[in-house]
Amino acid sequence: MIILSVLYVVAIVAESMTAALAAGRRSMDWVGVCLLGCITALGGGSVRDILLDHHPLTWVAHPHYLVITTVAALATIALARVMHRLHHLFLFLDAVGLVVFTIIGCNVALELNLPLMIVIISGMITGCVGGVLRDILCNDIPLLFRSELYASVSIVTGLLYVAGLHFGLNHELVMSIALLSGLTLRMLALRFKWNMPKFIYNRDEH
Amino acid sequence: MIILSVLYVVAIVAESMTAALAAGRRSMDWVGVCLLGCITALGGGSVRDILLDHHPLTWVAHPHYLVITTVAALATIALARVMHRLHHLFLFLDAVGLVVFTIIGCNVALELNLPLMIVIISGMITGCVGGVLRDILCNDIPLLFRSELYASVSIVTGLLYVAGLHFGLNHELVMSIALLSGLTLRMLALRFKWNMPKFIYNRDEH
Amino acid sequence: MIILSVLYVVAIVAESMTAALAAGRRSMDWVGVCLLGCITALGGGSVRDILLDHHPLTWVAHPHYLVITTVAALATIALARVMHRLHHLFLFLDAVGLVVFTIIGCNVALELNLPLMIVIISGMITGCVGGVLRDILCNDIPLLFRSELYASVSIVTGLLYVAGLHFGLNHELVMSIALLSGLTLRMLALRFKWNMPKFIYNRDEH
Repeated sequence: MIILSVLYVVAIVAESMTAALAAGRRSMDWVGVCLLGCITALGGGSVRDILLDHHPLTWVAHPHYLVITTVAALATIALARVMHRLHHLFLFLDAVGLVVFTIIGCNVALELNLPLMIVIISGMITGCVGGVLRDILCNDIPLLFRSELYASVSIVTGLLYVAGLHFGLNHELVMSIALLSGLTLRMLALRFKWNMPKFIYNRDEH
Repeated sequence: MIILSVLYVVAIVAESMTAALAAGRRSMDWVGVCLLGCITALGGGSVRDILLDHHPLTWVAHPHYLVITTVAALATIALARVMHRLHHLFLFLDAVGLVVFTIIGCNVALELNLPLMIVIISGMITGCVGGVLRDILCNDIPLLFRSELYASVSIVTGLLYVAGLHFGLNHELVMSIALLSGLTLRMLALRFKWNMPKFIYNRDEH
Repeated sequence: MIILSVLYVVAIVAESMTAALAAGRRSMDWVGVCLLGCITALGGGSVRDILLDHHPLTWVAHPHYLVITTVAALATIALARVMHRLHHLFLFLDAVGLVVFTIIGCNVALELNLPLMIVIISGMITGCVGGVLRDILCNDIPLLFRSELYASVSIVTGLLYVAGLHFGLNHELVMSIALLSGLTLRMLALRFKWNMPKFIYNRDEH
């Protein structure tokens, strides 16, 4: 579907730009900024494809996606002064990326005829792993594990999508509902600072 | 063999629960606890399968293992108050996991007719990499590189197993000897705090 | 080509030994030193092969490379006292490793008939990812992202190599020019402390 392809490009641009800002906070050099942008934007899909043995990877078959994410990372350096004014726009685009990546990841697993549970996990990996790689390379504990309903939004989006298809509803309708529901949930979670309960365990390791 | 399948389930439950405690020490949220549990319990086998091109991965073919490790992680949250009383039980179950994963990893490489050295390394990867992934995601230097004969126990277990099969001994006998020897070595190492010698190098990087 | 095979062995020995010193700075035990040496020396090629679905991995097909890198890591422990006197030799050998790995990585992608942009990226992954894995396992922000033209040297080497082949020049001539140019650039960058400009962004994450 055309709309999904357009949203995919929007998503990888947004992910690359937010990763470039994270790189700037750690004073990485320009090459590091570009590498972190590309890895964050395209890493989730790459890990999914490696786990599911789905070759060639997207960027190997279509190297122009690497050009897009590299240009997006470099543009972030040029635009750094105005980026903070676009903070809310980027939170929104990041949420778009999360749900779009999730749907694309579900589609890949559906094409491979994998069990429904793996379809949802494939969506979650595609949506979330790019940010995990970014956090590991920045030497942080991945945000995914700590806050913000990020993985939960991806799971809900995938569940709605798979359930809708299972009940034989129109494909584009199901996709629209899943995308909009996931996006709404994510924006509400950000607005009202919803979090999953934390597990706090203080015993020593001996 | 039935006994190996039963021990495998015991092992992934134990690995998921110890990872959940590590997640609790870093105040991760419930989703993070479940993800860390699944990655730690199933990550070693997944990395082995990706390196050896052995598809589909165990959890892709059998998603119920993901249900088991997720439930184990959630149960850890519920049981957190009594977990410290089970500390010694978990050290034992973790050692069981190490040797069982090692034997299973050796078997995968043997089925692929790989060289004996790769068979032993396949066992070590299966036994040890889950814990390395847990430590990376918790932003620690992997314990594997620092202490406790963990990798050494796995290598000894694999060596005994491969050597026994090489000399044509009965398969179940060889497996039992390798499992029990590895388990004993690990428990002795814990009890008497055996460690490999450390390499300490203090020169600057200039 | 024989010379490339010889240089490859020199390169994995040099990478394993510098990784062993990094392990010593973190007081890892002897097993950790060997593992870090093997992963650093052979990890770049492994990640490349996994991303490009190029199996079996080098060390799976030729386990003697694992013996070489393990012996190199152990030799570093034995030679620790004199290693600092060899500091400049190792900087040179590390640069040799970077350009040799790059050419080998380009060759793998060329054999798979991948687009020229992927050929250059394949070279860069082969040359640089081993060091990234070393830094992640040592719990540092990868040096690659921060300094020293490391990735840039790899890209320039790959570009020269691909461009030379594209224009139909003699293969060995092109390879020699690319190797020597990359090596010279790297040594000049070290000598004169050339760095890529850094991107510094101080805004909070809110």
